[in-house]
Amino acid sequence: MNLQSLNTPAALIDVARMNHNIARMQQRLDALGVAFRPHVKTTKCEPVVRAQLEAGACGITVSTLKEAEQFFAAGISDVVYAVGIAPGKLPQALALRRAGCDLKLVTDSVASAEAIVAFGQEHSEAFEIWIEIDVDGHRSGIPPEDATLISVATALVEGGMHLGGVIAHAGSSYEYDTPEALAHIAEQERAGTVRAAQRLREAGLPCEVVSIGSTPTALAAGHLEGVTEVRAGVYVFFDLVMHNVGVNETSEIALSVLTTVIGHQAEKGWVIVDAGWMAMSRDRGTQKQKQDFGYGLVCNEQGEVLDSYLMSGANQEHGIISHVGTPDHDIEKRFPIGTRLRILPNHACATGAQYPDYIAVKPDGELQTWPRFHGW
Amino acid sequence: MNLQSLNTPAALIDVARMNHNIARMQQRLDALGVAFRPHVKTTKCEPVVRAQLEAGACGITVSTLKEAEQFFAAGISDVVYAVGIAPGKLPQALALRRAGCDLKLVTDSVASAEAIVAFGQEHSEAFEIWIEIDVDGHRSGIPPEDATLISVATALVEGGMHLGGVIAHAGSSYEYDTPEALAHIAEQERAGTVRAAQRLREAGLPCEVVSIGSTPTALAAGHLEGVTEVRAGVYVFFDLVMHNVGVNETSEIALSVLTTVIGHQAEKGWVIVDAGWMAMSRDRGTQKQKQDFGYGLVCNEQGEVLDSYLMSGANQEHGIISHVGTPDHDIEKRFPIGTRLRILPNHACATGAQYPDYIAVKPDGELQTWPRFHGW
Repeated sequence: MNLQSLNTPAALIDVARMNHNIARMQQRLDALGVAFRPHVKTTKCEPVVRAQLEAGACGITVSTLKEAEQFFAAGISDVVYAVGIAPGKLPQALALRRAGCDLKLVTDSVASAEAIVAFGQEHSEAFEIWIEIDVDGHRSGIPPEDATLISVATALVEGGMHLGGVIAHAGSSYEYDTPEALAHIAEQERAGTVRAAQRLREAGLPCEVVSIGSTPTALAAGHLEGVTEVRAGVYVFFDLVMHNVGVNETSEIALSVLTTVIGHQAEKGWVIVDAGWMAMSRDRGTQKQKQDFGYGLVCNEQGEVLDSYLMSGANQEHGIISHVGTPDHDIEKRFPIGTRLRILPNHACATGAQYPDYIAVKPDGELQTWPRFHGW
Repeated sequence: MNLQSLNTPAALIDVARMNHNIARMQQRLDALGVAFRPHVKTTKCEPVVRAQLEAGACGITVSTLKEAEQFFAAGISDVVYAVGIAPGKLPQALALRRAGCDLKLVTDSVASAEAIVAFGQEHSEAFEIWIEIDVDGHRSGIPPEDATLISVATALVEGGMHLGGVIAHAGSSYEYDTPEALAHIAEQERAGTVRAAQRLREAGLPCEVVSIGSTPTALAAGHLEGVTEVRAGVYVFFDLVMHNVGVNETSEIALSVLTTVIGHQAEKGWVIVDAGWMAMSRDRGTQKQKQDFGYGLVCNEQGEVLDSYLMSGANQEHGIISHVGTPDHDIEKRFPIGTRLRILPNHACATGAQYPDYIAVKPDGELQTWPRFHGW
């Protein structure tokens, strides 16, 4: 297997870049004195997660119970499922815990806490629960000062569950793009979550874990006083959305899609390639950011950015590549049929999910197939 | 297995609706006197394609050679691969033909035709090639009056390949939403492709097949004189994009995503569900149409539309459901934790691709798992 003979489209991991990204985040969090629990939803790929753990990660964060099952089967047992548990998923969570997985669940309501307690008592299982805190209004969670926080915690503790801590994610950090704004939202995430922990402790309730994180806030936080662990996912590959946020260079993006030129519309300055939205995903996350990269930024086969060529349009298996601004009327000669290009994605989590396997390109040029799983 | 015990998110096929959609298209094309070759990229699912063939389809259209391989292995041999062939994929196409698959390839350039001829001659294979015609400027293909048409055809025929016909797809039909505009683009697709066939025949070149189609134009065409076959894909499920185009009611959409309520932000009028963009896809195809459905239109568990509730936001495994216009401050009582809902998707092709399996809900309520494949 070599790069020249790979079927296209293919999702390539530049392993040197990936290792650099893993080391960068781990060193930063080591210096800040907190544990690191990467979010494996980005890759769902064992060799990547193995590299994150070998670099010093303390455990993993998952977005589905299937991820918990797959990584537990691979020998990883310290797992937090960071999506509010649906009552109907409690049997699946119980099976994981009974098999020895140290699975932590998340909730943010009394109704959900009562469902956990009822099921836990019925099955004599003291689930470990982390309460989700809302630090920026972007999604779920309980605001740090809300009375519900104490009600939920009390319902869990009185019901015999193990209240493990609090967990927050400043998802709104993706909307900023200056160091000052990122530092501000990072501090808001830290302070809000620490405050929630403080309120629980003042009420005589346990709160060992204070878990926060997103890739931008993890990289922007000035200090992490009161925090015990940080979570981040997309940093392992980075992408164009994160580049617009300001946390990585395009030369640090470790995921790209290899594609082949299959045609041209020369008068329009278009190249047609065999990677469309199925290969890139429909994610247009840079659309509202400071630079809109269409469906991705074009590189040559070696991964060097070709300035100002974007995938400007996509159908299911067709991509349209064009020059930003003025059409390139020499595009047919520049990229003849059969030319192979790489496309950097808007959003690595979404692009990776389109593939059953990544192709890992090792620093010495060796290629390996790294499977990823999909579905729930 | 029953609807109440299904893990969520799940991709449900309403089989009665699907059968209705299949019959509608087949009857229409029978009446217009043309063969029907459904595009299986929408589902990549054998039981669905089996139902299309049993209703009268003459063969299939595929968007990847993997689809050709999978459906040929399932006994379907009349296949057109409707994406311009990359030279590097010719060995894979040859292997299919040598195994007995009646695989047709597509090209729209002299350079590609020459690559096919060189490879075909080297392996003594007379590939059947259809020339792609550009009828609306939306993507690839040769305009009907362009000199390149005859050059490509001549290169193929003189090189010993089998020139099978012409193929066009009026992808721009998705941009219209009135019967008049759709009838106009349908006629443009028909007339342009028939004209290309006429030019080939006038030049003494063979052109047996005249293949056109998209779901909107197939349903809008006034007549199909000169056309031999029509292709369409998404009609089998329909979706919200097609609803906005005006070719289906929401009550005809056969694909939906089953999800569970996991939380609320009551003051904002938000429900949080366990289906996010991973479950719906990132496709926001209704964003620029006359009605923006966000990430999908909300139904109850039985599939009845709940007027004016949309999935208004999505993270990877979290969806936010809210009422259009005024917030619903009773939303916590209306949809308590554990409530199961169905979401109609913007784009059935993109949503289906997120799942390893569909759950087929038969007219009698029986559920079956229908696998679909993914990747290239």
